[in-house]
Amino acid sequence: MTSTFVGKPMPLLDGSVKVSGKLRFTADITLPGMLHARFLTSIYAHANIRGIDVSAAQALPGVEAVLTARDLPPIAPSSRVSLLLARDRVIFVGQPVVLVLATSEAIAEDALEHIIVDYDPLSAAITMDQALAPDAPLVWPTGIPTGTDDSSIHGASSGGAASTEQFTNIVRKFSRKRGSIEQGFGEADAIVERTFSTPVIHQSYLEPQSMLVQIDPVNDGVTVWSSTQGQFQVRQDVAELLHISEFDVRVVGMPVGGGFGGKIVLYEPLIALAARIVKRPVRLVLTRMEEMIAANPAPAARIWLRLGAKRDGTLTALHASITVDSGCYSSGLGGTISFLMGSMYRLPHFLMESTEVLTFKVSTSAYRAPGAPSGAFALESLVDELATTLNLDPLEMRLKNAVRTGDLRSDDKPWNNIGMVNVLEALQQHPAWRERETARAAGRGVGIAVAGWTGGVEPTAAACMVDREGLVNIHVGSADLSGTSTSFALMAAEVFGVSLEQIRIVSDDTASAPYAGVAGGSKTTFTVGPAVVQAAQEARKQLLEIAADVMEADSADLEIVDGKIQVRGAPSSSIPIAEIASKTFQWSSKYSPVIAHGRHADPETAPGFCAQLAEVEVDPDTGEVEVHRLVLAQDVGRAINPAAVEGQMLGGATQGLGWALYERIAYSDDGQVLSGSWMDYAVPHSTQAARKYETIIVEVPSNHGPFGARGVGEPPVIATAAAVANAIKDAVNARPVDLPMTAPVVLAAIQDGKNGK
Amino acid sequence: MTSTFVGKPMPLLDGSVKVSGKLRFTADITLPGMLHARFLTSIYAHANIRGIDVSAAQALPGVEAVLTARDLPPIAPSSRVSLLLARDRVIFVGQPVVLVLATSEAIAEDALEHIIVDYDPLSAAITMDQALAPDAPLVWPTGIPTGTDDSSIHGASSGGAASTEQFTNIVRKFSRKRGSIEQGFGEADAIVERTFSTPVIHQSYLEPQSMLVQIDPVNDGVTVWSSTQGQFQVRQDVAELLHISEFDVRVVGMPVGGGFGGKIVLYEPLIALAARIVKRPVRLVLTRMEEMIAANPAPAARIWLRLGAKRDGTLTALHASITVDSGCYSSGLGGTISFLMGSMYRLPHFLMESTEVLTFKVSTSAYRAPGAPSGAFALESLVDELATTLNLDPLEMRLKNAVRTGDLRSDDKPWNNIGMVNVLEALQQHPAWRERETARAAGRGVGIAVAGWTGGVEPTAAACMVDREGLVNIHVGSADLSGTSTSFALMAAEVFGVSLEQIRIVSDDTASAPYAGVAGGSKTTFTVGPAVVQAAQEARKQLLEIAADVMEADSADLEIVDGKIQVRGAPSSSIPIAEIASKTFQWSSKYSPVIAHGRHADPETAPGFCAQLAEVEVDPDTGEVEVHRLVLAQDVGRAINPAAVEGQMLGGATQGLGWALYERIAYSDDGQVLSGSWMDYAVPHSTQAARKYETIIVEVPSNHGPFGARGVGEPPVIATAAAVANAIKDAVNARPVDLPMTAPVVLAAIQDGKNGK
Repeated sequence: MTSTFVGKPMPLLDGSVKVSGKLRFTADITLPGMLHARFLTSIYAHANIRGIDVSAAQALPGVEAVLTARDLPPIAPSSRVSLLLARDRVIFVGQPVVLVLATSEAIAEDALEHIIVDYDPLSAAITMDQALAPDAPLVWPTGIPTGTDDSSIHGASSGGAASTEQFTNIVRKFSRKRGSIEQGFGEADAIVERTFSTPVIHQSYLEPQSMLVQIDPVNDGVTVWSSTQGQFQVRQDVAELLHISEFDVRVVGMPVGGGFGGKIVLYEPLIALAARIVKRPVRLVLTRMEEMIAANPAPAARIWLRLGAKRDGTLTALHASITVDSGCYSSGLGGTISFLMGSMYRLPHFLMESTEVLTFKVSTSAYRAPGAPSGAFALESLVDELATTLNLDPLEMRLKNAVRTGDLRSDDKPWNNIGMVNVLEALQQHPAWRERETARAAGRGVGIAVAGWTGGVEPTAAACMVDREGLVNIHVGSADLSGTSTSFALMAAEVFGVSLEQIRIVSDDTASAPYAGVAGGSKTTFTVGPAVVQAAQEARKQLLEIAADVMEADSADLEIVDGKIQVRGAPSSSIPIAEIASKTFQWSSKYSPVIAHGRHADPETAPGFCAQLAEVEVDPDTGEVEVHRLVLAQDVGRAINPAAVEGQMLGGATQGLGWALYERIAYSDDGQVLSGSWMDYAVPHSTQAARKYETIIVEVPSNHGPFGARGVGEPPVIATAAAVANAIKDAVNARPVDLPMTAPVVLAAIQDGKNGK
Repeated sequence: MTSTFVGKPMPLLDGSVKVSGKLRFTADITLPGMLHARFLTSIYAHANIRGIDVSAAQALPGVEAVLTARDLPPIAPSSRVSLLLARDRVIFVGQPVVLVLATSEAIAEDALEHIIVDYDPLSAAITMDQALAPDAPLVWPTGIPTGTDDSSIHGASSGGAASTEQFTNIVRKFSRKRGSIEQGFGEADAIVERTFSTPVIHQSYLEPQSMLVQIDPVNDGVTVWSSTQGQFQVRQDVAELLHISEFDVRVVGMPVGGGFGGKIVLYEPLIALAARIVKRPVRLVLTRMEEMIAANPAPAARIWLRLGAKRDGTLTALHASITVDSGCYSSGLGGTISFLMGSMYRLPHFLMESTEVLTFKVSTSAYRAPGAPSGAFALESLVDELATTLNLDPLEMRLKNAVRTGDLRSDDKPWNNIGMVNVLEALQQHPAWRERETARAAGRGVGIAVAGWTGGVEPTAAACMVDREGLVNIHVGSADLSGTSTSFALMAAEVFGVSLEQIRIVSDDTASAPYAGVAGGSKTTFTVGPAVVQAAQEARKQLLEIAADVMEADSADLEIVDGKIQVRGAPSSSIPIAEIASKTFQWSSKYSPVIAHGRHADPETAPGFCAQLAEVEVDPDTGEVEVHRLVLAQDVGRAINPAAVEGQMLGGATQGLGWALYERIAYSDDGQVLSGSWMDYAVPHSTQAARKYETIIVEVPSNHGPFGARGVGEPPVIATAAAVANAIKDAVNARPVDLPMTAPVVLAAIQDGKNGK
């Protein structure tokens, strides 16, 4: 398709205000009478609370309220969002116990030191193994509370009604099966088997979680400003916990300084409850340490994997046991990991068992392609290992087994059209792969890996109005995390036939916005885009109908050229859009304002695959790894804005390097977080990023996305760690199986290799 | 048409928050760092400004800025809104000269006393006669400035480039003619002639003009909170004067504590300019005195009228000379008055000449049915006089001549369907008219009058979304001055088929709102209503299509009963709307969110007529008038909400009593306002209202309004003064010709009558 805007690299519309520091975030908003919130959090992974003395804190000048669970309505802590403040018992280090509201952040901070919490420490299961031990202390001794009765709220620690049910720390078990793995492994000429582990990872967005809540004095409703990826989700959760209609909750989705899945909703309902109590606006901005200790990190996982193939490389069977350390609530990611692991290759036989284990740690949640990096690290490491064992080219072996359009996913549904083979082939053609012997000659290793991500879908809507000045206003309700608004502008300009300067993207809050769901699941362009296109097309039609009447022409004969409407091929007849539009705002006009909507719902996703090649150098004496080159080939369907797509690929892969080599929330034996700052938690520095990045945009058009576009954001983070692991193996013939592959881990692998392990 | 909601009296949705004092107005908003604005205004009706010393004021603690015209960009004062601060010359008492911005209103107020303005007083023409005198000082010696060059900005006082054009204080002349008045008066058996006068009147809304402006630090755009009837007009004017795109001006239309035409836009652009200069939020709330001295009052008028009729009462000719005292800018109302006066009756011959005169007084503007009460006072007094002269029943005589559907208006366009005859007939049937001899026997007088109002029209749009809880959200951009939002809710409930509790009216600000124009011209229900109906109907269709798919039924077979969707006549199949709606907000759903728009533009208006009967008692010794009874018969087309319609009728007629008996902005010879507070300016007290009101709702359905509705707000104010005047004449055989008909005015008329005048 010939296009004027779609497919042309375009700087992000908000780029300039962002890099110049002009953009105002939630923490920049101050309201009259606003109070600052600060948490006193648990210092134990598990303890009963015998009492809390807040009197000294309460007496401090500037302290307006010191809230504990007793001040809050009785709400069952059925999820992290409804956990609010600890009631009688704490179950992870960093759990909010007391909320101080003061006239300044400093006063609130000072007040924390005047609060005395009388803890009765209890034994805690910090690791999965501890949690799975027969006599393990239980995170939820009578199950996760769901009701609203008192015993439910207090959990088992209060010794509520006796239950005959036997509870454990296993919150979810799930298995997927196809064929017979016995048969599959029986047909295999080679079988490899390993156990891999990936740690708890923080999304490390620059801007911490921030929110501000104001109570409406008229109707007891609330307005919430939040740095959220999903303003509609915030609205829903706040309404639910405040027991009011969603209509009475107005959420203003603020600019999001990085989210990556971790910023959907967390403390908004609690802050709303606090604001309701004090009847003043309340703002909470987490500190970096609170972020690292107790936000929404990705769960740790341990994956045992066994993989068999015939001599020619044809995979015959996969057997997996996946254990996910979910922290104190279910993350729901065990199923995701197994779904993806069983869906990447044509596998006649598989059995995958996943178990989510609760531990006395913070709850875990989504991080860019949730669960996928863990699974891909295991699977893609083992595929490589199998290729080595069979002495096959690992890329060829992947191509041989890669799923194609129509092949079955592990849920036995067919893949819709996908580009897994295409991204592998793109990598195969790349000099970095073709000339890998050169790198090897220089003492480096080259490794590849590939991964796919289905993406999510939610229904969406968008509106388009043409204003008095002829500007085409596109109204959306989505957070712009990755340049999606710029892509909407490109698409709208394309279908409307005007320049980008004539397009305005309006991000409405929940009171006015067309529904857009959450900005997550690599779906914003994919799902909101079609609604934008539809709204713009319909608005264009309305405008041309008015112009046709004004110009006494047939609207089918009209075209838009350079912001003017003209009879096709007759520029002399042209009338500026603004002139036509202004007629719809005049007294006694017969022309209605141009306003149209787009509505979109399509259960089909547009999966994106990304193949990656890492070229690394490993210091055999220290185990230190340096990434010289990182090549990404990703099928984006259609790059609406190639500049933004490339940005997503580079960012994703760099976060992938964090998974691979640096990042880990480390816990002490008693559940204390040892990496509570960016001094301790190693987000890759610019010097730790790859020395050279190369991006290959592959375009296998989706049948469902706008202009053929697919989800872009999540795929590039998934395979990086595996590619690096395979490159390390290629370099020093040693395979690290634990992330991050820090120098000690790699060195241990090297020594294990020497020891014949 | 059978209806469930439309036509049933319904308390206003916001009534409870209003009467309980919970509603938050513009003056209730405080922003961090906000400054309070206060004007130093001119104490002369005309003077040159030789210099302004603001240094002492500027030095006061808490005073952040003291602005004069020199601090503002050079903008030609082509209208009152762009007059901003006086530059070199003042042309009315109360004209803003200096703007003080301070941290509190009290400090700003104090600072005013420290400012020294060195005036050079000039002679001023305060009355129309003075302004029309050959040697009159000119308000705009070289015409109202329109350009942006320096001489234009400074006006003639700076002695700009010489112009050969001869200017006067006549800003606008206009004449309307039909047939030959010579012929018409020649055919008349009786001719009457009088000169009437009506004063400058203030709209006397409870809440003074209030606005708050915040500059967007990112893009230099502004957000304006304003108690305005027309947020879109504010947006346009602010954008124009700030030289920015309307897109960068966000106007939040706040609750309006009364407007009546006077609150559309006034100081918003000036305050926006001020906020831009100080880079802080600025709030201006006018004082009551500022309101009375220099807001947007209705102009004074002098109307000479000659009217002829045949013996049987058939009108033959009308000759009118209308002079409007517009103040310092044109009000544009001379033409309106003549248009209406020539349109009420079948007149074969008329000649109407109107002249707008500029005086050194505040500019004038719209007040509920702008111009109409002045014209109706003259015309309806004289029709009565003619009936008396011809010894005819004044109601019969009106019926004989009243315009009917298809009759020509004075602009020679036909009236579309109207109910003038119907309202007269309704009054004719009323006991107050039929038994008027009883009143007369009790020493009272009974007078009637009738008037019509065409109303205005602007294009509109509305949106409808169904939220996750199944609430039907109607989005509009109109200010709710008179219960229009309640009427929208009734209409939406009617066409959607749900209860009123399931409807929510969302008043969006200009950033998100569908266009609605100004809430004025008795047109909000009439023009926005159809867009609401259309949006609700289309949304209902969308919802039923989803339900049909869910229920495996044909959407044509579905109905909505009690908030549930069911196959027609089969309640057992029913599914709550919320359940269907929630499916449009689920991940992987195939159902799109329900969102629809209505668009409306119809150049045709739906004129409303209101006939009124006043029964009065006049003290012949003092001239004091007491209104015992006021009966209104008004054609509202269809009363969407009879309770609101009745409220409009009562409110309009009471304001009409203000015109009739009490209200007048009084000026001294040198242009000082003598009635600068509600102690001096006599808005009718409850004891001064009519003792008894009776309302007769007549419904002659409009072919254009929703459910047949017509404009309601303006008609009931128009004829009151004339009805009271005719009742006074009936009671004491004396005809006052000047409004307000205070005791001295009536007494003088009585004495004139005795003296045979």
